[in-house]
Amino acid sequence: MGLPATARIDIGRFWTTIERSGEIGVGRPGGLSRLALGDADREVRDVFIAWCREAGLSVRIDGIGNIFARRPGEDDSLPPVVMGSHLDTQVNGGRFDGIAGVLGGLEVCRTLDQLGHRTKRPIEVVNWTNEEGGRFSPPMVGSGCFTGAYTLDWALGRRDDDGRTIGEELDRIGYRGEMEATPRPFDAYVEFHIEQGPILDREGMQVGVVTGGYASTGMLVEFRGETAHTGPWPMERRRNALIAGARLLVAVDDLGWEHAGSGGKATASRLVAWPNKPGILSDWAQATCDVRHADPETSAVMAERVRRAVHEAAARADCTAEILDVWNWGGKVFADELIEQVRATSLGLGYRTRDILSQAGHDAYFVARHAPTTMIFAPCRGGITHNNQELCTPDDLEPGLNVLLHTVVARANR
Amino acid sequence: MGLPATARIDIGRFWTTIERSGEIGVGRPGGLSRLALGDADREVRDVFIAWCREAGLSVRIDGIGNIFARRPGEDDSLPPVVMGSHLDTQVNGGRFDGIAGVLGGLEVCRTLDQLGHRTKRPIEVVNWTNEEGGRFSPPMVGSGCFTGAYTLDWALGRRDDDGRTIGEELDRIGYRGEMEATPRPFDAYVEFHIEQGPILDREGMQVGVVTGGYASTGMLVEFRGETAHTGPWPMERRRNALIAGARLLVAVDDLGWEHAGSGGKATASRLVAWPNKPGILSDWAQATCDVRHADPETSAVMAERVRRAVHEAAARADCTAEILDVWNWGGKVFADELIEQVRATSLGLGYRTRDILSQAGHDAYFVARHAPTTMIFAPCRGGITHNNQELCTPDDLEPGLNVLLHTVVARANR
Repeated sequence: MGLPATARIDIGRFWTTIERSGEIGVGRPGGLSRLALGDADREVRDVFIAWCREAGLSVRIDGIGNIFARRPGEDDSLPPVVMGSHLDTQVNGGRFDGIAGVLGGLEVCRTLDQLGHRTKRPIEVVNWTNEEGGRFSPPMVGSGCFTGAYTLDWALGRRDDDGRTIGEELDRIGYRGEMEATPRPFDAYVEFHIEQGPILDREGMQVGVVTGGYASTGMLVEFRGETAHTGPWPMERRRNALIAGARLLVAVDDLGWEHAGSGGKATASRLVAWPNKPGILSDWAQATCDVRHADPETSAVMAERVRRAVHEAAARADCTAEILDVWNWGGKVFADELIEQVRATSLGLGYRTRDILSQAGHDAYFVARHAPTTMIFAPCRGGITHNNQELCTPDDLEPGLNVLLHTVVARANR
Repeated sequence: MGLPATARIDIGRFWTTIERSGEIGVGRPGGLSRLALGDADREVRDVFIAWCREAGLSVRIDGIGNIFARRPGEDDSLPPVVMGSHLDTQVNGGRFDGIAGVLGGLEVCRTLDQLGHRTKRPIEVVNWTNEEGGRFSPPMVGSGCFTGAYTLDWALGRRDDDGRTIGEELDRIGYRGEMEATPRPFDAYVEFHIEQGPILDREGMQVGVVTGGYASTGMLVEFRGETAHTGPWPMERRRNALIAGARLLVAVDDLGWEHAGSGGKATASRLVAWPNKPGILSDWAQATCDVRHADPETSAVMAERVRRAVHEAAARADCTAEILDVWNWGGKVFADELIEQVRATSLGLGYRTRDILSQAGHDAYFVARHAPTTMIFAPCRGGITHNNQELCTPDDLEPGLNVLLHTVVARANR
């Protein structure tokens, strides 16, 4: 027996969980500062697991700290349909980014309980570890590890800027689980998320059918030079790694402006150096940057331009450069059948609906390499995100959550 | 009775003190990492004071931690002739920068003891606190405070990048002294220092007669923008303070190259930002930069160019900018009579001697506002400094130390 077409999630109940989450890791006014594997992350994980158990879900944690909460299916041997996202935030983050997807999955399970509906396939809700990358690089490390893009040992060894590893911090907060962090079959993965861009809000759309993501490339770059005195040391002999880094940042920003007309983005978001002090030239610098474009070919050209800029910046400062890490995400990776199902469900429910590309990174990109995957977007005010002023109302999120409910249940019952 | 013209410092004895100092706060191979008011700075201060007391000097410490070791004069009511420099280093510093001037002053006193020579005026040796600015900004804070350029309260409140203040750290290492950190009369101040540039070494000169310093301006600049997502947030709406900082750094470096032909320098040595993490635009950045030129007018033009670059960089990144602090040093601030005395003494001792401008900041600039002041330079290999490969041999330092001896004693006996 299918789910009644009139079934709806309980937005009031959902909002209560959002508000409780918003009390954990409070940041600047209205926002959260809940960095991965910090004390606040531990607290929200504890609360989330308690909610899951209250909802009758069984909880398992894998070796990279991903939390899976399972609602059994009529045939529990079938692969699950999985919903989820992340509970961690940037250091100046909002209360909805990622969180709405995890707690939305929980709300779907609660709704099914209330309706007494048992799906054919099991349903799971997942909280992926360190999606943001706001503390540990790379971002999306939990989903990357789970789907085999990263090895567990490598992931556990990633360090924050204070030198602590993911493994140490998982142990400290008690979230290094026993389940293997390796791929197991998913029937499908559907991630509900706020858009983090201004399009749906501007156009008064209620649901975004995510057809793919901006083709994106991130890079971690290291420059090496030599320390010297900032005074007498001749300009011609300077090897200031900080300047190599600054030249790269400016080149990346210029590249972003060059492609702004077609919606392209190029961002330099991080530059650290050593000693990075008055009076002395730095002999080491590290920069993180990325490029994103709707058109994969243009994106590839932009990434190539960044690679060239790395070497030009190094040459100008007489430093050496090494691209330590490159990560790609986005593209047309989502499953057509699921995209179509989301679109049909949203239109069937009468919501103002449009296709949209994601411009942000999401765990869904990694999961898409592993199982049929798609995303559902909800509007957020002005597209403001990674900022304490990120804002959604219940009206912004309710339509997408109902689309999530019906999409997932239809999939789980097919 | 004057000092015999044949009097010489004991380079072997001096070298022993240099080698002992080189064991305290060991950094990279051959270098020191003895940041102001850290544990190693405490240790070298303790050792220096013990040496001073062994040499019969009385030691006083002022409220900013400057150490004054005094050798009485025949008329002890006269203002002292003062030698000195600093014992702190950059995080990747050498064993001679500053240190040779403090321990050289001690060696002069030891030589006078050995000769049984009592000067008419008292002689003092000073170790100034935080000359380098490698931990606390601004540099030369001890001499600046002593000479009234900074108030004591302001200086004590300066913080390192971990938030600890100079006052807290002085208390922690036990070097907040009882003597007032206020100007008292000096008959003269003579600072012996390594050149920290390649000129003397390249030309085979033994002594540099420092006729002044490059006219220099340092600035501490702050940019404010807004955090946002590095993906969907439109280029047109970005207010990335890190990019404002990077654009300033590049402009400053370009300015340095523009003036390299006439020996000008422009340096950006520090850029910090917040959050400065992948995935998020930074809403705050702070940069430290400086310009230096032998010609004061050109230097002023360069400083004005930096001011303009600050506002251009901010405008390009849609950030606000504030120049938090500006400090000037250098220029023709040394006393002609002392410069002439150093020149005559060096030539009289038969050393290969040339006039030279300092391109670095020194405590002597502050002291020059307060008392007749000059400096004596010794060569260092290749001009390498603020680097663990900084190198001097006894032969490099001995001539300048003998010039220091005879200059100071002549002055103290006049």
